[in-house]
Amino acid sequence: MSPFDDGVAVTPSGEGRYRAEVDPRWNIGSAPNGGYLLAVAVRALRETLPHPDPVSVSGHFPGRVAAGPIDVEAVRVRSGGHHSTGTASLIQDGERRVLVTATFGDLGDADGPTIIQAERPEIPGPDACVRAIGSVAPMFLQQFDMRLTPESAGFAVGHRSGRGLMEGWVRFEDGREPDTLSLVLFAMFHLMEQPRWVPTIELTVHARGRPVPGWLQCRFQTRYVIGGYLEEDGEIWDETGALVALSRQLAKVRAEATPPPRGRLSERQEASTGR
Amino acid sequence: MSPFDDGVAVTPSGEGRYRAEVDPRWNIGSAPNGGYLLAVAVRALRETLPHPDPVSVSGHFPGRVAAGPIDVEAVRVRSGGHHSTGTASLIQDGERRVLVTATFGDLGDADGPTIIQAERPEIPGPDACVRAIGSVAPMFLQQFDMRLTPESAGFAVGHRSGRGLMEGWVRFEDGREPDTLSLVLFAMFHLMEQPRWVPTIELTVHARGRPVPGWLQCRFQTRYVIGGYLEEDGEIWDETGALVALSRQLAKVRAEATPPPRGRLSERQEASTGR
Repeated sequence: MSPFDDGVAVTPSGEGRYRAEVDPRWNIGSAPNGGYLLAVAVRALRETLPHPDPVSVSGHFPGRVAAGPIDVEAVRVRSGGHHSTGTASLIQDGERRVLVTATFGDLGDADGPTIIQAERPEIPGPDACVRAIGSVAPMFLQQFDMRLTPESAGFAVGHRSGRGLMEGWVRFEDGREPDTLSLVLFAMFHLMEQPRWVPTIELTVHARGRPVPGWLQCRFQTRYVIGGYLEEDGEIWDETGALVALSRQLAKVRAEATPPPRGRLSERQEASTGR
Repeated sequence: MSPFDDGVAVTPSGEGRYRAEVDPRWNIGSAPNGGYLLAVAVRALRETLPHPDPVSVSGHFPGRVAAGPIDVEAVRVRSGGHHSTGTASLIQDGERRVLVTATFGDLGDADGPTIIQAERPEIPGPDACVRAIGSVAPMFLQQFDMRLTPESAGFAVGHRSGRGLMEGWVRFEDGREPDTLSLVLFAMFHLMEQPRWVPTIELTVHARGRPVPGWLQCRFQTRYVIGGYLEEDGEIWDETGALVALSRQLAKVRAEATPPPRGRLSERQEASTGR
């Protein structure tokens, strides 16, 4: 099994309960990547809901998750012909640390108009981009073959480009092809080289199409940093040029450069640390 | 009390339970506006969480809500120094029809950097714009003084502008000043003149600042309609030019021109009708 599928695997452990293992390979520093945690929740909801594609997944991250065993409580709220909706909580030490609501549909069966009023940005191909290695999260980055445009690559070596924009290409290092489950992870890959600790408060991903095998073209942009709060908007296209996901997260720049080690802060102070 | 504050009022009815009255003044056709329903949930969470501002609110709309009494189940999940997080369900006929997760903070106390890398669009002032009257939702529109740019006003009389962009100004008709609670409603005002039935699947609003009294400048844009699914991205600024909210919803164009009357469809077919 690929590291990703292994990392999001869930085992039934009771009525609407699943057990998963948070794999530290998907850590950024000492905390799991938020997109990875969202993908674990989506994986459990796939067992619970009849539709295959997470057309909208919203996650809030009130508590810090640690690598190791985690319980997932998945609840099917409603199931209809077009869509089904459920909630999932990621629970550690008896605390709900990630709260997810998702609506699933079937993107292979989406009827209705298609009207595109945006241009996919033209960027150099993967071979003309810079492979991201990274010092902040080397183990995490090893899971991917990530290529950044020369303009974006400043981020990858820990510098701020100053323009709040990161573009490039990504695929799994082991050749595992993208699908709507893994889009939830890819929608989050941009923050990992932030030189500051910027925990995610909330992340919402819309899967808008099923990607074909191959590279994903990505564009992540932050336009507004206000009082330390920032949004990051992501767009992902597959190799045919089709948009396959939109994402947005709200994060907060913290005064601390890195997450404090677990146990150093009281539970109350630790709240709202998304990753 | 203003119609808005009256419409989102909640009364405690038990441990973590509130009672509200869904006011048909906020209906679009036969279904309540999704932003209004989200504001009811936020109003209940304000009773439950210690922080004042909904910095991120995510709502999924698996069931259709009808005007009349509704139960709100609000749960405080975690409360910390910077943020607190809770969930709220809007319940009618024993069914959870709107699922909300929200993280609250204190925008009056937001420390951290401010870096703006976007231009607020320059549009004509309110007096040079066109007052929206509208035929689809006249009662809803009467609650607002809404002014659309001449380019956007085609939407307001039921035509498609073809550019997926709507800009203008809005405030409450009765002079009730905007705050971070009402931003959750204003973040949703754009869809109401859609000539097709486009139920919301999910809506997320980020309150990014407390608006000063006066007009709100709004910009709503749809870039990708794919297989009938569309996102609508909203930006709201106050009269000082400060960004005060970002919003995004996922909606689905339905084959039917208007929502079917309640009771005509089986519960299963009716699922996923956000409003």
